[in-house]
Amino acid sequence: MANLMKLKAVVLLSGGLDSTTTLAIARSEGFELITLSFDYGQRHQVELDRAQLISEKYHALEHRVVTIDLKQFGGSALTDDIDVPTGRDPEEMSEGIPITYVPARNTIFLSLALACAETMGAQHIFIGVNAVDYSGYPDCRPEFIYAFESLANIATQAGVEGNAKYKIHTPLIDLTKAEIIQTGIGLDVDYSLTHSCYNPGKQGIACGICDSCQLRLKGFAEAGLEDPIDYQIRNINPSQ
Amino acid sequence: MANLMKLKAVVLLSGGLDSTTTLAIARSEGFELITLSFDYGQRHQVELDRAQLISEKYHALEHRVVTIDLKQFGGSALTDDIDVPTGRDPEEMSEGIPITYVPARNTIFLSLALACAETMGAQHIFIGVNAVDYSGYPDCRPEFIYAFESLANIATQAGVEGNAKYKIHTPLIDLTKAEIIQTGIGLDVDYSLTHSCYNPGKQGIACGICDSCQLRLKGFAEAGLEDPIDYQIRNINPSQ
Repeated sequence: MANLMKLKAVVLLSGGLDSTTTLAIARSEGFELITLSFDYGQRHQVELDRAQLISEKYHALEHRVVTIDLKQFGGSALTDDIDVPTGRDPEEMSEGIPITYVPARNTIFLSLALACAETMGAQHIFIGVNAVDYSGYPDCRPEFIYAFESLANIATQAGVEGNAKYKIHTPLIDLTKAEIIQTGIGLDVDYSLTHSCYNPGKQGIACGICDSCQLRLKGFAEAGLEDPIDYQIRNINPSQ
Repeated sequence: MANLMKLKAVVLLSGGLDSTTTLAIARSEGFELITLSFDYGQRHQVELDRAQLISEKYHALEHRVVTIDLKQFGGSALTDDIDVPTGRDPEEMSEGIPITYVPARNTIFLSLALACAETMGAQHIFIGVNAVDYSGYPDCRPEFIYAFESLANIATQAGVEGNAKYKIHTPLIDLTKAEIIQTGIGLDVDYSLTHSCYNPGKQGIACGICDSCQLRLKGFAEAGLEDPIDYQIRNINPSQ
């Protein structure tokens, strides 16, 4: 991987389990790292704090936080004042488009990552999308990623000049949550730093019952590992 | 056009000549209008004020302003504290990628328009891009628009369900500035409301010498019309 040592990559980092594993993979491939997080009216500052901490731990050249008001587009439990689903069976979550879907979210996030990449002279963008647990999200599908990559190579100065090719890396796209965790453990990811809960309590303690906590707990269980974070309730849905 | 009477369109509106003409065209085609403007760290509040005024005049269902901090991506005279070019010959402007290019700007703006469209149940997006005067901008080219339209139909809930098709309308893409103005005049556009200057003086008076003012003045001259706005200096570059 010596030939990649000086290449820069923009890594989308929410501070969650998937994006942190993605960051560790990008580092293991020898990229210089620029992390990019979004303050998009999500409910919890804890995500951005974790993203900052993780960026420092991975010696990112820079951690950029872009403020963008997605709240006004509504349509999602992650930005609106509607309840996130809890107590659901992970199998049930994969049916249809989830309430936690934010319209065009990954299109917006990748567009901003592209602007960041173009400005910083990076040609590589890493995003921790996953088509296994998030099969209901249109913008987590491989065909979406291919379409965005094509767009990136048309939309930019580099695309016009024909002297650069943007590459969107999705190292988690085909992995189960257990496989993601196993990959991360193999790369010494400290999962105690990561935050996944949609509905944390005081001090950012994970609820243990929202879809995201349930997927995470199930992933650790299937990987035969214990999740190092604290939970208010630590039970995988009894129907499992 | 009666069958379009109830269709909604999201129209990107900067308050400038091109986007206002685009809005008038969308109205003439019978769409219900939702206007979308961006507060992206551009230098001048006057643009947003005009966009609001024009939205009211065209009875838009809603005028949304999305705040998004593009300043930190730098790379452009429109958001950085670097001087915009002045006194240039319009022919000269079309060479290479201009300093006023904002990295991935139209990709970001169309992504946000797509989120707005998905939320509002609109399938039509109008953008006043132009490949004649802005040939140096990679994201004003027809191939960029086609690529974004493909992406939109993959990136969204509608795309997954196969029950809707997003359409990106670019009615100005092949028109000269004079043709845009003639089209607008035919639709009773009041160009005294529009703002184009990159570098306005106090009270928002157009400078008359930046690239944007020069293109506008040249367009009115070629259309055989007088630009109704005030200028600090009203001369097309002497080399013309």
